[in-house]
Amino acid sequence: MALKNFKFNVIESNKFARVGVIETHRGNIQTPAFMPVGTQATVKACLIDDVIKTGSEIILSNTYHLMIRPGVDRIISAGGLHKFMNCKLPILTDSGGFQVMSLSKLNKVDREKGAIFNSHVDGKKFILSPEESIRVQKGLDSDIVMIMDECPKKTTDYKVINKSMELSIYWAERSKIAFGLNPHKALFGIIQGGLFKDLRTKSLNNLIKIGFDGYAIGGLAVGESQNEMFSVLDDLKNIMPDDKPRYLMGVGTPADILGAVKRGVDMFDCVMPTRSGRTGLAFTWNGRVNIKNNKYKNDNEPLDPNCSNLNLNKYSKNYINHLFNTNEILGSTLLTLHNINFYQELMSSIRENIKKGTFDKFHDEYIDKL
Amino acid sequence: MALKNFKFNVIESNKFARVGVIETHRGNIQTPAFMPVGTQATVKACLIDDVIKTGSEIILSNTYHLMIRPGVDRIISAGGLHKFMNCKLPILTDSGGFQVMSLSKLNKVDREKGAIFNSHVDGKKFILSPEESIRVQKGLDSDIVMIMDECPKKTTDYKVINKSMELSIYWAERSKIAFGLNPHKALFGIIQGGLFKDLRTKSLNNLIKIGFDGYAIGGLAVGESQNEMFSVLDDLKNIMPDDKPRYLMGVGTPADILGAVKRGVDMFDCVMPTRSGRTGLAFTWNGRVNIKNNKYKNDNEPLDPNCSNLNLNKYSKNYINHLFNTNEILGSTLLTLHNINFYQELMSSIRENIKKGTFDKFHDEYIDKL
Repeated sequence: MALKNFKFNVIESNKFARVGVIETHRGNIQTPAFMPVGTQATVKACLIDDVIKTGSEIILSNTYHLMIRPGVDRIISAGGLHKFMNCKLPILTDSGGFQVMSLSKLNKVDREKGAIFNSHVDGKKFILSPEESIRVQKGLDSDIVMIMDECPKKTTDYKVINKSMELSIYWAERSKIAFGLNPHKALFGIIQGGLFKDLRTKSLNNLIKIGFDGYAIGGLAVGESQNEMFSVLDDLKNIMPDDKPRYLMGVGTPADILGAVKRGVDMFDCVMPTRSGRTGLAFTWNGRVNIKNNKYKNDNEPLDPNCSNLNLNKYSKNYINHLFNTNEILGSTLLTLHNINFYQELMSSIRENIKKGTFDKFHDEYIDKL
Repeated sequence: MALKNFKFNVIESNKFARVGVIETHRGNIQTPAFMPVGTQATVKACLIDDVIKTGSEIILSNTYHLMIRPGVDRIISAGGLHKFMNCKLPILTDSGGFQVMSLSKLNKVDREKGAIFNSHVDGKKFILSPEESIRVQKGLDSDIVMIMDECPKKTTDYKVINKSMELSIYWAERSKIAFGLNPHKALFGIIQGGLFKDLRTKSLNNLIKIGFDGYAIGGLAVGESQNEMFSVLDDLKNIMPDDKPRYLMGVGTPADILGAVKRGVDMFDCVMPTRSGRTGLAFTWNGRVNIKNNKYKNDNEPLDPNCSNLNLNKYSKNYINHLFNTNEILGSTLLTLHNINFYQELMSSIRENIKKGTFDKFHDEYIDKL
């Protein structure tokens, strides 16, 4: 039987904010959506069945980490990433480019060959070309594949950003060819151009000419201010195609997400809820809580008494404080699940408020609090 | 409404091996029972709801660790240990004595005052008397309370063991008085006497005179051989009261458990399944598996394809090997749950075989394999 094709529909709009549904053969994803990050084929510290119970409908995994450990061949032999990590949800994989630039010892970026680098784990040499990135992502059998781009560090140097954007367009063309016809999967283009409006516009127009199933905004969450980020989104919201999902990569805080949804973004990923969960920081509707703080030793209330999920409201701040003080793994697990659950509650509330036409009010109520 | 009283009944015997039920106001425990260890108010790396799904009906927690961190007052303020750690199962707590001897910087054992020691965490001074141990355990609100004994290191010095046994009997009397009338809880005496039959007999007879709800065998699993341990149990099986649960403390491997059940033991606790789970060692019906071994990189079969619990049969050895190679917390979680689940399958099979009258055959089939 043929696999169901990838599809996206906007079902409700509230100014630029919009509610939609991404259909994949592995299940539907309600947008705006938050994707928990499963770097090394595991959402750190959590059973995948529990991640699903938080309302997560898609996760992200990292091509760079997986190609280094365990290597794509082991995952192919297991029947793909879903089977390897026992994940029924759709999976989006990045191209590996971002981590090559940020984590590896990068030797050279070659226009034809790609990125030549040494692994941050054992120094082993790899070459990642646009074609190789697609080959690996196909081996992982992910549902949304990202093109390989060059993601430069934040700079005000127009020439550097322009050159990098042009290289990314060339690689986008090659990625599209390497991806071929896979209607049950999606291939997303990535808009580059830093903080320059004309370069962002040029990047997007070139990507549209090539034609992708979705458009991601790259080169943000790299150190710019929230206002700078929102300014780029303000420019893009008027020119991005309405009928394709829009994905803001690597973002961000709950407030970042609220502001980006207001500017038309449909998809997000960020390590913030999971990484914070392992280090003692909890997100709540009343703002952030550092659970290691001594004052929680006497606090027998849960982080959220209204949480009805995974018995999370049965664990007090006193208890979680104790778990962090004694370096117990369960502390990381409970707080990661709490944070993912909070992020999914946030996305669900965003969708509800867009549908009810009250999103602006909701945005204004929480943008400074979260 | 009055709480249900503690109760024990043997319902089936097969020579010395026996199946029974311990009734507590928090639920029944089928014996022979294995108690996973939740040292610091958490069964390490696991959600308690998942521990319950393995078929565990009681857990053990450690008075020494809890009195140091977070301290009994914080647990009392939370409404007791069950509420603190969100555990509906009955809990047995040890007296703290064993860890004082093995972990702390012990300054002195005083016949009247108890054990005077400095915490292994921050050097803070504590005094643990029989009365203080009972007071702490009552604060924890555990269901089975252990008397405080002196648990000497393995030695062939008769005088040392005799003196220690006599001290333990004196402390047992004081523990019984401090415990008072708590019919909905149980107080267990602990038989000492090392490898000396006459001292073990004397210890047991003195404890029976004082009168306890159950009798534990202490001072084993301290370095003696399995044969030495079985020899002590062979002596005790003929003289321990039939109508009270018998608990072999800190034991052991699956083979240890099989041999001890054959000699009439009803209850066990051991860190082996949990600690091994965190370090890459899996228990299976075919023996032990070191999941870090390179050969499992190509093994896409689960540790136990017949496991129907917690989706554990959805995770391959290849995947768990990858998790340990990348230091992912999920590796510890999956292997700990696998091991606890295996131990509970073992206990369930033991009970079934005793009921069917086939325990000796089962014992002989697995004693060398496990």
